[in-house]
Amino acid sequence: MIVELDRSRELPLYLQISRQIRDQIRSGELPPGTRLPPERRLAAMLGVNRTTVVNAYRELAAEGLIVGHVGRGTIVAGAAGDGAGTGEPRGIPWGQLFTEATDVMNDPLLRDTMLVSARADVISLATGIPSPELYPIDAIRALLDEALHTAGQELLQHCPTEGYPPLRAALADWMAGNGPPPEPDQVLVVAGSQQGLYLLARALLEPGDLVAVESPTYLGAIQVFRAAGARLLPIPVDADGMRVGLLEDLIARRRPKLIYTLPTFQNPTGATMSLERRHRLLALAAREQVPVVEDDPYGALRYDGRPIPPLRALDSHGSVIYLSTLSKVLFPGFRIGWIAGPRPLIERLALMKQIVDLDTNPLAQWAVWAFLDRGLLAEHVERLRQAYPRRRDAMLAAIERHCAGMLTCERPDGGLYVWGRLADGLRARDLLPEAARRGVAIAPGSSFHPDGEGENTLRLNFTLPREEEIDLAIARLGEAIAALRGSRSTGAERRDAARATPIV
Amino acid sequence: MIVELDRSRELPLYLQISRQIRDQIRSGELPPGTRLPPERRLAAMLGVNRTTVVNAYRELAAEGLIVGHVGRGTIVAGAAGDGAGTGEPRGIPWGQLFTEATDVMNDPLLRDTMLVSARADVISLATGIPSPELYPIDAIRALLDEALHTAGQELLQHCPTEGYPPLRAALADWMAGNGPPPEPDQVLVVAGSQQGLYLLARALLEPGDLVAVESPTYLGAIQVFRAAGARLLPIPVDADGMRVGLLEDLIARRRPKLIYTLPTFQNPTGATMSLERRHRLLALAAREQVPVVEDDPYGALRYDGRPIPPLRALDSHGSVIYLSTLSKVLFPGFRIGWIAGPRPLIERLALMKQIVDLDTNPLAQWAVWAFLDRGLLAEHVERLRQAYPRRRDAMLAAIERHCAGMLTCERPDGGLYVWGRLADGLRARDLLPEAARRGVAIAPGSSFHPDGEGENTLRLNFTLPREEEIDLAIARLGEAIAALRGSRSTGAERRDAARATPIV
Repeated sequence: MIVELDRSRELPLYLQISRQIRDQIRSGELPPGTRLPPERRLAAMLGVNRTTVVNAYRELAAEGLIVGHVGRGTIVAGAAGDGAGTGEPRGIPWGQLFTEATDVMNDPLLRDTMLVSARADVISLATGIPSPELYPIDAIRALLDEALHTAGQELLQHCPTEGYPPLRAALADWMAGNGPPPEPDQVLVVAGSQQGLYLLARALLEPGDLVAVESPTYLGAIQVFRAAGARLLPIPVDADGMRVGLLEDLIARRRPKLIYTLPTFQNPTGATMSLERRHRLLALAAREQVPVVEDDPYGALRYDGRPIPPLRALDSHGSVIYLSTLSKVLFPGFRIGWIAGPRPLIERLALMKQIVDLDTNPLAQWAVWAFLDRGLLAEHVERLRQAYPRRRDAMLAAIERHCAGMLTCERPDGGLYVWGRLADGLRARDLLPEAARRGVAIAPGSSFHPDGEGENTLRLNFTLPREEEIDLAIARLGEAIAALRGSRSTGAERRDAARATPIV
Repeated sequence: MIVELDRSRELPLYLQISRQIRDQIRSGELPPGTRLPPERRLAAMLGVNRTTVVNAYRELAAEGLIVGHVGRGTIVAGAAGDGAGTGEPRGIPWGQLFTEATDVMNDPLLRDTMLVSARADVISLATGIPSPELYPIDAIRALLDEALHTAGQELLQHCPTEGYPPLRAALADWMAGNGPPPEPDQVLVVAGSQQGLYLLARALLEPGDLVAVESPTYLGAIQVFRAAGARLLPIPVDADGMRVGLLEDLIARRRPKLIYTLPTFQNPTGATMSLERRHRLLALAAREQVPVVEDDPYGALRYDGRPIPPLRALDSHGSVIYLSTLSKVLFPGFRIGWIAGPRPLIERLALMKQIVDLDTNPLAQWAVWAFLDRGLLAEHVERLRQAYPRRRDAMLAAIERHCAGMLTCERPDGGLYVWGRLADGLRARDLLPEAARRGVAIAPGSSFHPDGEGENTLRLNFTLPREEEIDLAIARLGEAIAALRGSRSTGAERRDAARATPIV
């Protein structure tokens, strides 16, 4: 169920809620028997008074669209008339027409997280966005002005599906800082690394194929692979990254089609795969002829410790498909990512991209090219590497101050995230509404686990909040955890024991 | 087979060609038995001397990768060693790993067309791009500068997957000029209408489903539907648009899942569906509960005759999904299109877009919003409606002058294209290399026919070439047709008769 409120509209909030739910019931999006969220929970998510939700539900109940059941909550009622049997054309039954593949994507916990995160009165630690106040806005303004002045006609047209050629070359050069660079024609520009993952899934995965992934891993990857009909083989992560030894044991029996890894400052845990495991993973991939997708959005953002080469730089058998993005080191709005890999794969992906969206905004590509070509990206990354560890340390200190004994965290050497574990069997999904009520958003860790594990984990981003907001946000989080502990001091362990069986 | 030449590189052209073909053979992209294009044809496509291709093929033959067969042409040889059997890891066999769905997209005729079209010495009539010298570059420069100055932090971040909210509202307002507008939350912003079609196909089509389409129709739609595994039910187009009566006869028996139509200034024929047929199509769709996708990129570009309302404005049963784009009335580089439809569909499509690319460039969305909001788009469209009919008429006059008796055309009331038929059973695929040799690119009509028919048809665009180039381009085309006629005056009819059986 998706409800979005527009506080600038005159329509009262309870009517906005009831109207959206009504539409979803009538269209079949919410079929009979669907359980609606409890009033308190929905109120907390939307940041409204509980009475508002009560009034909305009352409206719907009066129309016979929903019914309350003791013990089962509020349920969508059986289908109403809708003019059936009158001989009139009945309109399109949209709910019946949708393909199945799309059903997997609507995780209510995620939607809740996004709703809370978007509220103006909330400090969000739930995203993966770099610090907006550090965006090089003036440089981008000057570049766009120059671009349109010198080459407007060209840059407002289409460009090759594979990418603006000078940008392909500049990205290859950028990679030369960290291992042997690819040739420019081995680089495909994509609309953000999300599109890169999507194209890879479409090119390489048939329904039923198995993909080995870290557990936990990037949420967008879980969604993309599931949407392609693939099954996931979760390999746990520890402080040295993916536990490659477990994959070695499984690979011959399970035959994954693809291995997906974020080896450096992993999302969500911040862990980095050791050099020894990198070599073992590559040997395994070469022996079994299984391609490895190395997703590396954060590699440039190291704050401590010695650099470890990316997998692609250690690979001597051509097994690695390298995926990265400008979204974490620059900003996400230009939607520019890239894939570097063997030519046959790049050509295949380009054919698919032509179907999916033809090409990527050439003006944005030009601006990113110029930013790279003039050395501005290297300078910008240097600035981030000064600013971000201060925020990370501020967050860790605040957790020490406000959450001692309730939340434990590791100190990541780079990236954007602190990964936390709740004590006492508390669940992040229960923390979400408590935190929302106090004006802070977190990302529940179970969403990053393909098997639904990690109920006690959560991810905290330290780059979107301003440095001076971090302590306040963590203080609010501490209050929320304390409140949850108080309200649940009895039943929590019992409930957790009951759901210890993995879902997959 | 894809070969791209970079004339700025030091590597001789023949080595660029042989190297790319070699890579494609080694990777399995070109499996043993594949027939390579004849030397003369490849030379004409790439705009190189025939000797260059001869030398490239000689290199490959010397390595044993290709062989010449009398009567069969040049063929990829059986697999070579590749280090198999040495016990060494063998590298990833990419050619074996690709999914099947992607194979349908690599139409060699289209690749040829694009290669020719991109050559600097060629006047291209093959595209669908609005006149670059009319792009409102200064206005866009000023808007982007204002955007970054006033809201840079926000506009370089992510924005809602559904689109920048003010743009959704402005697009709904824009539609009010032509029928009742949708609510803003019924509008989904997409990365060009190609992405809109892609999302619709993914949301509504399972492999094996049937889609009723016009024949001929938009090439990108054929590709999208085929890539989704759908089959196509071609309904012929005449001067009054889709022959709806034929669809009425077929619909109960064939049960298409979707009807796809470009009712106004159709791509590629320029035909407009009559009001009477629009009403019949809508009645049919409502009775059979089959959704209609109305693709309307050109509706605002009417030069003559009385406007006919879009299908969506005539629809009283909610059967129509409306799809449009800014690419034809503004420029394609911002990659902004939109879908307007029922809320459950919009929500479903937004969930899919989140998987595909998360969101669309918010800076571009802001600029388009401001362009609409300040009335600049309406003024711009007025300018196009002054300029484009002059080019259309220049093209028709040039055809009269240079191609009389060889090429017949209708005069479209709007849009970007003139549709032509070659006399004497000549085929556009044979004309393509003749025209390329003389410096003009055309789009062969058979590519727009889902059943491979229309070998004697071609599409000519009159907006990309400058007004003063049109006569020259058509003069070159006339020479090419005359040359083809001369060289083929004997065997042409015979060959055409042999392939009159439809492919589907």
